[in-house]
Amino acid sequence: MITSLTNMRIKQLVALQEKSRVRNRERLFIGEGIKMFEEAPVSRIREVYLGERLWERLSGGDCQEPVWEKLAECRKQGVFVEHVSEEVLKKISDTQTPQGILFVMEQFSYSLEELIKEAKERWEKGGRPPLFLLLEDIQDPGNLGTMLRTGEGAGVDGVIMSRGTVDIYNPKTIRSTMGSLYRVPFLYTDSCGQTINILRESNILVYAAHLKGEKYFDEIAYDGGSAFLVGNEGKGLKEETADLADAYLKIPMAGKLESLNAAVAAALLLYQASGYARRMP
Amino acid sequence: MITSLTNMRIKQLVALQEKSRVRNRERLFIGEGIKMFEEAPVSRIREVYLGERLWERLSGGDCQEPVWEKLAECRKQGVFVEHVSEEVLKKISDTQTPQGILFVMEQFSYSLEELIKEAKERWEKGGRPPLFLLLEDIQDPGNLGTMLRTGEGAGVDGVIMSRGTVDIYNPKTIRSTMGSLYRVPFLYTDSCGQTINILRESNILVYAAHLKGEKYFDEIAYDGGSAFLVGNEGKGLKEETADLADAYLKIPMAGKLESLNAAVAAALLLYQASGYARRMP
Repeated sequence: MITSLTNMRIKQLVALQEKSRVRNRERLFIGEGIKMFEEAPVSRIREVYLGERLWERLSGGDCQEPVWEKLAECRKQGVFVEHVSEEVLKKISDTQTPQGILFVMEQFSYSLEELIKEAKERWEKGGRPPLFLLLEDIQDPGNLGTMLRTGEGAGVDGVIMSRGTVDIYNPKTIRSTMGSLYRVPFLYTDSCGQTINILRESNILVYAAHLKGEKYFDEIAYDGGSAFLVGNEGKGLKEETADLADAYLKIPMAGKLESLNAAVAAALLLYQASGYARRMP
Repeated sequence: MITSLTNMRIKQLVALQEKSRVRNRERLFIGEGIKMFEEAPVSRIREVYLGERLWERLSGGDCQEPVWEKLAECRKQGVFVEHVSEEVLKKISDTQTPQGILFVMEQFSYSLEELIKEAKERWEKGGRPPLFLLLEDIQDPGNLGTMLRTGEGAGVDGVIMSRGTVDIYNPKTIRSTMGSLYRVPFLYTDSCGQTINILRESNILVYAAHLKGEKYFDEIAYDGGSAFLVGNEGKGLKEETADLADAYLKIPMAGKLESLNAAVAAALLLYQASGYARRMP
């Protein structure tokens, strides 16, 4: 059992929790909580740390809880499993009341070209048209996580983020994805312009949620591939990015509101596009 | 200028920021930020506090900024206006980087019967059918604020909250309403069951977002009055509350997701209902 707060591994865990620079250099991130652990793909899990209390509860008696089975699976695959004192757990956890389990995982890696190819193949086989979300400089970790979660619900083929977007491996973001982080493909792009070009060359129409929109978002058929551009919470889309969109869309708003929350706007757009597809014969 | 952190008024402001008990006893709350101040109804503003720096910027030269005009309007109405040191401002502000203005307001007060009456009158005159949101035990202040904001966009007639819902005058909630707090009517109810009965007696159908739903949310016409029941982020609706709904609705979800974020679910439901109404002849 690790009980020292100055243990080398513990220091590394704290750095991975707190610094996106360390996460991205090591190509690792930290997952937390029982459900997140149970849903995690074992092939990406490197290390697992259990708090003393959960460790004792699980070790006592014939434990048949899914978390225990998952732990056995990890051990079989040679994953490093260790238990730590409650004090150490609190130190490495990002939450006020840690659930007792925390684990190191390898980061995901997707290619835009691959994602587009897969989406098109599925469409050719009679599935939904391709659907992407393109995010520019989203700053709120919870908003980003919620968009990934909503993206999974709407059946998005990928979430592409500008470099200025908050780190998707931020603990708050991971938490608010509710496991979608494992299942929704995502990638960062150095150039939204280049990404828009690639999407357009693949016959995927790029729509920008924008006040300049002439059409309402629910007046469009979305019967081909669609990508939705959503901008920063405070500033919206950059002029030069919005200019590259194939069309601007308005979301109707009653009252005196200037805009909707970014994750809410993304949800309405994605569900509109996928919803139409769902009702197709 | 107030410079002392132990000044009686400052102590009272801190208590109002931090404690919902104090807010509700005094029937007051605190607003923060330039935009929130500019949009605030003057008749409800009791006290205004400006940080030293903003105060100096505004007092110097012929200031024509809207915030200055609003301040003049407040003074004309006899509102107490004071400036405070940056240290004091930081103490009473809920944000890391205060915008320099903070104000005390009287809480709002609406009656459900009045709201229903107004919604029906508007409908009878050819407007949209009545639309309500009924929230049970929402815990995240940001989620609640986002729901109020989305509610304004969708043209909701009122947001009704169970007593177990987080305080709507929580600083984080106020911030995420983006001013909707001033414009969307809301109230707390001691009994969701009683509220549902009142809505039903007014011919407003109560729909629950629920896994047991047989119909999808986009398969319904919403051509009469509608109210949507949305439950706690982790636990969903209480069994006994869900049982009282007129109908259960499902939101389709791809992937392995168990649920959507509560504010996202509310947004999809409200926009579906109001969107249909918007397209009516």
